Amino acid sequence: MEQTQLELWVEEKLEDIAGQRYRVEESLFSGKSPYQKVDVVRTSGFGTMLLIDGLVMLSERDEFVYHDMIVHVPLFTHPNPKRVLIIGGGDGGTAREALRHKGVVYCRMIEIDGMVVDAAKRHLKQTSHALDDPRLNLTIEDGVKHLAETQEKYDVILVDSTDPIGPAKPLFGEGFYGNVHRALSEDGIVVAQGESPFYYPEEQRSIVASMKAHFPTVHAYNYNNLVYPGGLWTFMFASKGLSPIRDFQPERVKRSGLRFPYYSPAVHKAAFALPQFQLDALADYLTPIEQ
Amino acid sequence: MEQTQLELWVEEKLEDIAGQRYRVEESLFSGKSPYQKVDVVRTSGFGTMLLIDGLVMLSERDEFVYHDMIVHVPLFTHPNPKRVLIIGGGDGGTAREALRHKGVVYCRMIEIDGMVVDAAKRHLKQTSHALDDPRLNLTIEDGVKHLAETQEKYDVILVDSTDPIGPAKPLFGEGFYGNVHRALSEDGIVVAQGESPFYYPEEQRSIVASMKAHFPTVHAYNYNNLVYPGGLWTFMFASKGLSPIRDFQPERVKRSGLRFPYYSPAVHKAAFALPQFQLDALADYLTPIEQ
Repeated sequence: MEQTQLELWVEEKLEDIAGQRYRVEESLFSGKSPYQKVDVVRTSGFGTMLLIDGLVMLSERDEFVYHDMIVHVPLFTHPNPKRVLIIGGGDGGTAREALRHKGVVYCRMIEIDGMVVDAAKRHLKQTSHALDDPRLNLTIEDGVKHLAETQEKYDVILVDSTDPIGPAKPLFGEGFYGNVHRALSEDGIVVAQGESPFYYPEEQRSIVASMKAHFPTVHAYNYNNLVYPGGLWTFMFASKGLSPIRDFQPERVKRSGLRFPYYSPAVHKAAFALPQFQLDALADYLTPIEQ
Repeated sequence: MEQTQLELWVEEKLEDIAGQRYRVEESLFSGKSPYQKVDVVRTSGFGTMLLIDGLVMLSERDEFVYHDMIVHVPLFTHPNPKRVLIIGGGDGGTAREALRHKGVVYCRMIEIDGMVVDAAKRHLKQTSHALDDPRLNLTIEDGVKHLAETQEKYDVILVDSTDPIGPAKPLFGEGFYGNVHRALSEDGIVVAQGESPFYYPEEQRSIVASMKAHFPTVHAYNYNNLVYPGGLWTFMFASKGLSPIRDFQPERVKRSGLRFPYYSPAVHKAAFALPQFQLDALADYLTPIEQ
């Protein structure tokens, strides 16, 4: 008689209406920090996957989409980004992409949960190898508190956070963006994880409203994540004036010598063309763009 | 003691690596035609849903994305589309959108499986109401055979098919596109359901290769479907010369007086900006575009 093989699956539930399941070969790590539950699993079809509080944060198979888009859109919009601050992003993928820009001389990263960093360093080398880069200054502390107190100035701030539950909740509030504005240089740009236009239109409105309370220029741009519910997700973009369309110089991408699996100058511009229903929902707060 | 409530879920499996599940309130129809298994279910979060051979074809919640994009991109690229042929599309959504264009005087639709049409007419009025339009000529027959024999000419042909398994398989072959070319007027355009760039890159290459064997102009454009695996899916576009970028006149959209939940002139143009990995995979067959 053949031995019965246990089938392991991990499932992300979307409220009580849908679920996305992934076949799992092996659970690599499971822990509970003071902030959240952290899991790392090796899947059959998506490489290693990081989950926080049961929500898929990334898979090795498609993390390039998220990390290309959170980093290269603002870093190629700003004419000369030297100082970058990452809030969250404990897996290291955002730092990895930011550090590919040779002009970035200082990259500060503040992650609230050391358990995410430790788990990524051990099981997610594809993203976490960047955490050992000498140009990166990583500390484990509360990014909201740090921003409220810091005297440093950054050219670009990247808010690489989970959803607005648990420790990430204050990152979605209006007070937070007042401090972000204060910590940005005069050409500064902030980009933040902006949820799903299909499933979280209210959360999207709330983020751009918070940004608009402090910044003259607010945009939203989309990307296509394989392992987030619905696939279509958004980054929110705010600046003290720089436009990701008007001030974007495609030849800077060429000159950088960098090549990306998802991002390109054409993808950069196209990402700001929102589906009509999403544009209608956010139009009160978005800066119009001519394409 | 409370009565135990049965929880119904329907699941689409992606090979053996992933699954997408939807909570179901009620099964409305389940049948087996000579061609395929047809199911209609009422879900908790996505309205009524049509499945063929266990694959989700559409949900009431997001069918507007697919139908906006298969129809309005070619119908606003062609300067004066009068005669439209739909192969497949038994749910009626593609016919519904095509018939919103006042210039369309003749819409022919050929669906191989009468069971899909009957089930949609009974349970999916949101899309199937268009099937009663007097401008629509719908017959139940083999679209591949019809195209091989027809003497009629069309301005736009829309291949609204399932995946290249079962009865839709010949729709993905090279011979098929020779007949499509013959049935198109001299400014003719064909658009076809083009699978997922993440999961089916080989199938995507095969479709554009088949098109390129007969058409001088071949493009791919993307849309974001909520209920297809991975979210990001593609339509393939071939024409006898018309370019969906160069020959597209955004003011025609305005002049039409039509408004769409997903499609807009900006979305039209942006959809052709493919992620770099997809562009690399298809570049051998695609007509370059300047954006």
